[in-house]
Amino acid sequence: MTATELPAATVDAFHRGRFWLTQPKDGGHRSGVDALILAATLPPGFAGTLADFGAGAGAAGLAVASRCHAARVTLVEDAPEMTAFARQTLDDPRNAALAARTTLLEADVTRSGRDRAVSGLLDNSFDHVIMNPPFNEARDRATPDGLKRAAHVMPDGLFEAWLRSAAAVVRPRGGVSIIARPGSIEPILAALAGRFGGAEIVPVHPRPDAPAIRIVMRARRASRAGLVLCPPLVLHEATGNAFTPRADALCNGEAALFGD
Amino acid sequence: MTATELPAATVDAFHRGRFWLTQPKDGGHRSGVDALILAATLPPGFAGTLADFGAGAGAAGLAVASRCHAARVTLVEDAPEMTAFARQTLDDPRNAALAARTTLLEADVTRSGRDRAVSGLLDNSFDHVIMNPPFNEARDRATPDGLKRAAHVMPDGLFEAWLRSAAAVVRPRGGVSIIARPGSIEPILAALAGRFGGAEIVPVHPRPDAPAIRIVMRARRASRAGLVLCPPLVLHEATGNAFTPRADALCNGEAALFGD
Repeated sequence: MTATELPAATVDAFHRGRFWLTQPKDGGHRSGVDALILAATLPPGFAGTLADFGAGAGAAGLAVASRCHAARVTLVEDAPEMTAFARQTLDDPRNAALAARTTLLEADVTRSGRDRAVSGLLDNSFDHVIMNPPFNEARDRATPDGLKRAAHVMPDGLFEAWLRSAAAVVRPRGGVSIIARPGSIEPILAALAGRFGGAEIVPVHPRPDAPAIRIVMRARRASRAGLVLCPPLVLHEATGNAFTPRADALCNGEAALFGD
Repeated sequence: MTATELPAATVDAFHRGRFWLTQPKDGGHRSGVDALILAATLPPGFAGTLADFGAGAGAAGLAVASRCHAARVTLVEDAPEMTAFARQTLDDPRNAALAARTTLLEADVTRSGRDRAVSGLLDNSFDHVIMNPPFNEARDRATPDGLKRAAHVMPDGLFEAWLRSAAAVVRPRGGVSIIARPGSIEPILAALAGRFGGAEIVPVHPRPDAPAIRIVMRARRASRAGLVLCPPLVLHEATGNAFTPRADALCNGEAALFGD
């Protein structure tokens, strides 16, 4: 796909200018807070291999590369419209240091068995998988924008397919991180069962007194530890539009979501 | 069972002395914060019929009767050791006003079909069911005290059995409230599915920065509404042993957990 075929794009600074993301101007899955919070689930000293499932333009994976200076990142994305943006991001000279540790793999994370391996997702090849799956429920699918629809609609069984693949590609004791809507907690826990344990959940609230709009979950392959429900992340104070200090630090790559 | 057969007991004031509970002095399932938070899931204007499943000595059910001045309460308890305490509580002259609206039913809430109805738990006969099921996991069962074991051990499938019965005995659009450990969120959601919807979850944290020790859930029969993850209840400030103002009000019958 040549530049002239690419939909209108913006180039946005993330992590206070430590990396720049080329992404669709309108529609599609524009990246923001969700991707940055997801990237904050890795401890700062993470120095292994990471797969960003459904990477889109690459925000979450690059945010891990930006925070964790020895991490090697594979952006895994199936939609050619989005891999074109991710390629532009990796070609941006300002991202050269991160791009040197980042690979783009055009693959469908829902494939299984030999199909998945042939597409480049090898068993036992990553230390951690992060995922921000399409999270609107099927009944919300009346959206006019095809690209937006592809990024936001959650077919039944998607968590099962994504977590099956995550369990296959992570090494023994490897981890997985997920950001999703609170209503997805049951299908996620069902798909983790028997694959990942020791789940830690952080609810994300827009305001101290408002219901959660997201849950962030992290779990470890074959762990037998019990579920931990952590104190919430609150994005904004009761009034005003500014981030809370914690949310601001998380979104700018200056803090981790968990205490490890 | 005569008074001389009853294990050593204490009589404790609840709701700042608005009712008094006779309960085992040692071991067993002594009631406290869990029962009071569970009772706070009802709106103050609740004026219907309520069943307290696994009522023990009756703390949660009596706390509803104390907060909701027109509620009619049925304490449902299977263990004769505990119904003896509940009977003493209802016979306490200081509880006379609440006892006039409260019934004690010795029945096993895990029975189904005709057995359940014969035991006195009739289909479509309650507006709301509250439950504080035995919540230790089976692997925690190494406890020397038989009565304590009966109250705290959670056999596999218990939520399924309790919520099946709750769905049978509540009226159309009736509700259910549950307090449990965070690790039980998946079996509870699985047992609610197809029976109750519109689940609201409140995590309960001992301190602002500590993981949740309980979840409180409320749901409505046959509702199709999505899950809501509410802001947490924090029992104590970061330091000190005093309750937070909200926890103090909830535990003393002066506030409701939800905004309705």
